[in-house]
Amino acid sequence: MKTVYSGVVFRVESGVVREPGGVRARRDVVRHSGSVAVLPVHDDGSVTLVRQYRCAFRSSLLELPAGRIDAGERPRAAARRELREEIGLDARSLSKLVRLIPSPGFLDETVTIFRATGLYPASATPDPDERITLVRLPFARALALVERGRIQDAKSLAALLLEARRRA
Amino acid sequence: MKTVYSGVVFRVESGVVREPGGVRARRDVVRHSGSVAVLPVHDDGSVTLVRQYRCAFRSSLLELPAGRIDAGERPRAAARRELREEIGLDARSLSKLVRLIPSPGFLDETVTIFRATGLYPASATPDPDERITLVRLPFARALALVERGRIQDAKSLAALLLEARRRA
Repeated sequence: MKTVYSGVVFRVESGVVREPGGVRARRDVVRHSGSVAVLPVHDDGSVTLVRQYRCAFRSSLLELPAGRIDAGERPRAAARRELREEIGLDARSLSKLVRLIPSPGFLDETVTIFRATGLYPASATPDPDERITLVRLPFARALALVERGRIQDAKSLAALLLEARRRA
Repeated sequence: MKTVYSGVVFRVESGVVREPGGVRARRDVVRHSGSVAVLPVHDDGSVTLVRQYRCAFRSSLLELPAGRIDAGERPRAAARRELREEIGLDARSLSKLVRLIPSPGFLDETVTIFRATGLYPASATPDPDERITLVRLPFARALALVERGRIQDAKSLAALLLEARRRA
């Protein structure tokens, strides 16, 4: 496959590929370096989400703190960095919750989601091109937003539903 | 924003945008017509998933039957079409489970997920460039695959976890 577009966040490859089973077809693939997301669970059981403008939807979405993995960075280190940058917290414990494939048909991004506990203040150093609002919620309210279709972001939905199973 | 790449499944737009809050930044957005996915629930409670080669991952993934919405098609009609094409079934009832945003940072795709019940045979008419294996599983086994990280596809994970809440 050859690169047909290179941007900051992803590049696009295109080509005719022969797949196992004999299918021969033109495929376009969006190549991405991978992402991390963090479910920050406070000592009282509440969680912090972020509200952020998403230009692809011309609206603000409620999501887990998340971001791209930098070149050479390990997912766990990226998760800790995003937690600091976006919500100004560090965590005594970061455990892996799940690895998610957002859109397997044409996007090779994976999102490794961590559960952060033992939270303590660190200095927030937000990305200059991000404008983020923190939203701290009792867990039951966050789950209710999922059930009412008010949280539609895949990584956030997956993390909150897995957390609900853990607490059940 | 201007189109910088046009493919069969998506196109890419790029440009400098001024966002609410005053942030001015270059953004690349992958534009997609939207997808549907279906959780087919049989009368005995089992579910049918599909195993399919995904060129972006050079491997086969276990997923809900799913596909792109055709131009002018409504999500519910697309879901019924994919159910027929991929697993050769039609459904007496299709209820909306959730709408998912796979990767809000740079991809405008949404996935509307339906729960299909009252399943009955229809003729399968698979896409010529898809090679699909049907995998029918007791629900508890499908859920165990989610919990062990063996199902990583976001739409499948979301649907199975929501179905588990419904059954609890």
